[in-house]
Amino acid sequence: MSKIPVGVIGATGAVGQRFISLLAHHPWFEITDLLASERSAGRRYGDVVNWILSDPLPARIANLTVQRADAGAARARVLFSALPASEARTLEPLFASRGHYIFSNASAFRMAEDVPLVITEVNPDHLDMIPLQQARRGWEGFIVCNANCTATHLVGALHPLHQAFGVKKAFVATLQAASGAGYPGIPSMDLIDNIVPHSYGEEEKVETEPRKIMGTFANGQFQFAEMTLTAHCHRVPVLDGHTEAVSVALARETTREAIIDAFRSYRGLPQELGLPSAPDPVVALVEGMHRPQPRLDRMAGGGMATVVGRIRPCNLLDWRFSLLGHNTIRGAAGGSILNAELMAHWGRLSP
Amino acid sequence: MSKIPVGVIGATGAVGQRFISLLAHHPWFEITDLLASERSAGRRYGDVVNWILSDPLPARIANLTVQRADAGAARARVLFSALPASEARTLEPLFASRGHYIFSNASAFRMAEDVPLVITEVNPDHLDMIPLQQARRGWEGFIVCNANCTATHLVGALHPLHQAFGVKKAFVATLQAASGAGYPGIPSMDLIDNIVPHSYGEEEKVETEPRKIMGTFANGQFQFAEMTLTAHCHRVPVLDGHTEAVSVALARETTREAIIDAFRSYRGLPQELGLPSAPDPVVALVEGMHRPQPRLDRMAGGGMATVVGRIRPCNLLDWRFSLLGHNTIRGAAGGSILNAELMAHWGRLSP
Amino acid sequence: MSKIPVGVIGATGAVGQRFISLLAHHPWFEITDLLASERSAGRRYGDVVNWILSDPLPARIANLTVQRADAGAARARVLFSALPASEARTLEPLFASRGHYIFSNASAFRMAEDVPLVITEVNPDHLDMIPLQQARRGWEGFIVCNANCTATHLVGALHPLHQAFGVKKAFVATLQAASGAGYPGIPSMDLIDNIVPHSYGEEEKVETEPRKIMGTFANGQFQFAEMTLTAHCHRVPVLDGHTEAVSVALARETTREAIIDAFRSYRGLPQELGLPSAPDPVVALVEGMHRPQPRLDRMAGGGMATVVGRIRPCNLLDWRFSLLGHNTIRGAAGGSILNAELMAHWGRLSP
Amino acid sequence: MSKIPVGVIGATGAVGQRFISLLAHHPWFEITDLLASERSAGRRYGDVVNWILSDPLPARIANLTVQRADAGAARARVLFSALPASEARTLEPLFASRGHYIFSNASAFRMAEDVPLVITEVNPDHLDMIPLQQARRGWEGFIVCNANCTATHLVGALHPLHQAFGVKKAFVATLQAASGAGYPGIPSMDLIDNIVPHSYGEEEKVETEPRKIMGTFANGQFQFAEMTLTAHCHRVPVLDGHTEAVSVALARETTREAIIDAFRSYRGLPQELGLPSAPDPVVALVEGMHRPQPRLDRMAGGGMATVVGRIRPCNLLDWRFSLLGHNTIRGAAGGSILNAELMAHWGRLSP
Repeated sequence: MSKIPVGVIGATGAVGQRFISLLAHHPWFEITDLLASERSAGRRYGDVVNWILSDPLPARIANLTVQRADAGAARARVLFSALPASEARTLEPLFASRGHYIFSNASAFRMAEDVPLVITEVNPDHLDMIPLQQARRGWEGFIVCNANCTATHLVGALHPLHQAFGVKKAFVATLQAASGAGYPGIPSMDLIDNIVPHSYGEEEKVETEPRKIMGTFANGQFQFAEMTLTAHCHRVPVLDGHTEAVSVALARETTREAIIDAFRSYRGLPQELGLPSAPDPVVALVEGMHRPQPRLDRMAGGGMATVVGRIRPCNLLDWRFSLLGHNTIRGAAGGSILNAELMAHWGRLSP
Repeated sequence: MSKIPVGVIGATGAVGQRFISLLAHHPWFEITDLLASERSAGRRYGDVVNWILSDPLPARIANLTVQRADAGAARARVLFSALPASEARTLEPLFASRGHYIFSNASAFRMAEDVPLVITEVNPDHLDMIPLQQARRGWEGFIVCNANCTATHLVGALHPLHQAFGVKKAFVATLQAASGAGYPGIPSMDLIDNIVPHSYGEEEKVETEPRKIMGTFANGQFQFAEMTLTAHCHRVPVLDGHTEAVSVALARETTREAIIDAFRSYRGLPQELGLPSAPDPVVALVEGMHRPQPRLDRMAGGGMATVVGRIRPCNLLDWRFSLLGHNTIRGAAGGSILNAELMAHWGRLSP
Repeated sequence: MSKIPVGVIGATGAVGQRFISLLAHHPWFEITDLLASERSAGRRYGDVVNWILSDPLPARIANLTVQRADAGAARARVLFSALPASEARTLEPLFASRGHYIFSNASAFRMAEDVPLVITEVNPDHLDMIPLQQARRGWEGFIVCNANCTATHLVGALHPLHQAFGVKKAFVATLQAASGAGYPGIPSMDLIDNIVPHSYGEEEKVETEPRKIMGTFANGQFQFAEMTLTAHCHRVPVLDGHTEAVSVALARETTREAIIDAFRSYRGLPQELGLPSAPDPVVALVEGMHRPQPRLDRMAGGGMATVVGRIRPCNLLDWRFSLLGHNTIRGAAGGSILNAELMAHWGRLSP
Repeated sequence: MSKIPVGVIGATGAVGQRFISLLAHHPWFEITDLLASERSAGRRYGDVVNWILSDPLPARIANLTVQRADAGAARARVLFSALPASEARTLEPLFASRGHYIFSNASAFRMAEDVPLVITEVNPDHLDMIPLQQARRGWEGFIVCNANCTATHLVGALHPLHQAFGVKKAFVATLQAASGAGYPGIPSMDLIDNIVPHSYGEEEKVETEPRKIMGTFANGQFQFAEMTLTAHCHRVPVLDGHTEAVSVALARETTREAIIDAFRSYRGLPQELGLPSAPDPVVALVEGMHRPQPRLDRMAGGGMATVVGRIRPCNLLDWRFSLLGHNTIRGAAGGSILNAELMAHWGRLSP
């Protein structure tokens, strides 16, 4: 069967590069379009990109000619968006109105009331909002968002507990990698012998997005999960991999063994269907009081798993643990690609 | 007036060096004794120490001859202990039994029921345990401890709030500097492109020591403060300066302004008496959502202040904020020296 | 005696901040003017600057109102320029033509045939070019440059050897700090678990500027020193302090002892005159095969000295050694200030 | 065909782990023996090792029982040695005398006059020393060494030039990764905001080993290459991947194009024979003035290639360039394994 042509908008940035790296050898998708700013348009991708990943840039991709993103046109109907929020706000609707299927890593529409914010294992049913979105907005295309990188992995660990025991409250403190801010992103002078508290905006995303994702979709509406989250976010001198320290209050009493079992047995639709990018296990458990660690654990499940360790009782809430996840794979490009894989499996990416 | 002779036990280690650096030009104390392991004994200090501080090693100190710590003897009656806990357990009582006044940074006796664990601004009255300690143990000397580096600065921020509003609960997540583990301490391979969750033992200290320090001393007993603390600790690639993200539940409702005022107006006995190492202000407030930062703020008050910023409401408890403090100055050697200064001021360091 | 009013052009950048930090408590100079881009003009300096130094921003300076640099006007006649080369190219002549004395850290005019490129200890006589520059250009003001940060410290170590033994050839490999690229400068993703070879342009400066500085000024012309230099430059994850590994071929045979003596006895006019920013010793010698190190040694002489160690024979040329120097103090702002101090001492900064 | 059983001596250290990681899925070799210190002996490998690689420890290996290295016995005849030099000095001869084939990464016997120091592409003929070594020492086994990590990649770049144009002199300055010092190795306090000049011993290895490797083997003797090398070595905050800045004087004049061609066309016996670990190309050329970089380029050829870039004329010698190579793969375990592959191909590893 021939592959589905796809494009990447914002192809030269850090997340755009990660999309390309993950899509370059994808069994179902084939990159046909690379869209970027006017400055790069009309030139060979390999000549304009400052490739910052350690995986080499595939030669076929390097030879593609970059197109202008702001023209709102692309050959491929399926487009992955790695745009900054400010540009996504105008360009993503433009593409969707012209029939494109947008799988977006941008924050611009994540909280829009008719846009599904999806982690494929957690709330694939939210994708049923798409026809309503199309009807309401008069689009033939659509926008589907993946979550903020930190929120993604927080949900990755909270959802198994929520399903099994009900999560009432969670406290999270983060140690986030530099790549989360893109490239050039954080100046090196800020991360040599230093850490930087993150912006309040980041904390708000971490406190809000999980409640939409773990909430319900019924009667054409998203209902947020009843759950109180509070976040303290920090940027640390790590390249890839966000670490999060979490304390949770659960609705039902449980044991450490039952928690471990909930993590271990957790599976979702992507695993059932065997989607190409689906990690298995979804939650990778690590042992020892000094794990997880970004350098050692971020590539669990090819960067698509959420790693959990240090499960122990909390003095204040019920339980505490550490989690870690790759922020530009599962937390960005990989999460979007998994969403597209499910839609493709369902046959909802008609050319 | 002539200076009080003092010695440093464990003089070649990271905290020992910090003691020396802070004492080298002290107005009241003069280093006469440097004690270390048998390997260094009998040799010139400058020849055996691998000096790791950016302040240069003073020539006078470099020329002192190192003595064996395990002989349990020193010219100076006042000794600052930078011993590891395992050695402190046997050596500190030996010195105290021989009449020495031990100001210890070791954890060995911090939780002993007759040993004052003192932050000079917070619980100077706990020093009144000393005569009871001496009577019970039959010592002419004594042991006074300063707190764990992370606990010290946590109390530095919690005590002003506790005095003003009553602290009921606190959640703390830490990003601790490498120097807290001494030298050689953490291998560089663990802190390049990486962070490491700390040991559970560290977390227990952070949850327990503050309750002894902010507790009361009455009828010859320490009563721990009624307060629930829970800690998530991490080691990060920072040289000096522990950052802590804190959420607190308070006994009385208050406002952001009142909290700021509580921090700003906070003073203790060291400030009243103008002790040489007393910082003023005790709590240094910083503005902006990206502060405090270790590289920029750790030297506030000469490394003796606790820096607080990012004060904002917490979704889960009442308020949250970030704090930062120098871990080997206020959090180790400097804290011990300030305790000794108070005792000297009171005339309780008779030769 | 009242202080000489001075201004800083490019006041909000990394080098601009260093100028301010070094001038804030200067015994002879007083900051009256802060000039920056139009965006900052008219606003309080403390409100527009993202202060990145660990020395706190003095309150008096924070309260100054920023002026537009491109207006080419300032109250102070003496101006220190921290402009990027591209802006220096047009603005510095504009100010000089209006009578301002420009002490510039920019590279724009360093190699101009009528502009003195001065390290105060090495070639103060080059300042006699100024009247010729003024005559030729029709200026009442002038431009005096300090050297590239890496070149400055290379000369700091080569000049004592050149005076004593004659330097014929030198090979230099550098490990340069992030602050040399300004702020935001190098992205953190480039300096986590990584080093970056520097640009060829930097290498050319290091190979050329020292020959102008160690050359002669006679008959109204600069004659470059006969000396072959070759440089390999790298950026490393260090905040401040450039390390340079040097091999030299000397005109006269010598011994390790004579070399050490040449470094130790090296003094210049700033030391003779006791200028406020003059380090003494100029070359700080360190011992041990693992020194100099940036974190331990960069603040030698208040950041104004060049640190030298590891002096040993070279298999290929005659001798090899390591040097280290602070790149934004002696290598940038401090070097310019020392030049201005000499001119002030000579009474050549008439109001 | 069944695999050749092999063992790793010093299995718990950093290089030992790298041996295991590279051998775990090797097509010709199968790990049967893990030898370490008495402390670990008798225990499950997975329980005693502090696994520091990001590749996961294979379960089969984790379940092997560690044996005492100092007993001098192992089931496998082929042993890879990751011992520290001091232990290698006594243990490697003990094993060799008992008939074991030792492929050693230790420095203990590299310069011994009857021990081949081999880079498989460069001097496979030196392996013909083995029968002489056996005769002279009365061993049924043998010791074959791979080179120091920095020397390995220096030869990786110099040998193609030496073959094509003759290398007379080379100057090399290194920026070496932390993993080169093993684990725990360099303390993190030494590599945060810092670099450390390396020991003179390391420089001597870099200046000497290449001359043995590029020398000849004739009449039962090694003759060193006539070539003058001088090295300046530094440790930098990089996890893996040594960078080296090199200037060379060549016997014959040449052009940049001819040099590039010499690198590009360079192949050796491992490539001809298609040995499993042989990289192809051997020298990976990169473009751009900011490459090679450790994070981006160290995994070229699976970590077995030497990466070269920045080829340009040198002011002092003839040409200069930058090279980079993985220090624990090609520079340590991988180099040894490639040597063993050649011997296995030749049928010289009889059971």
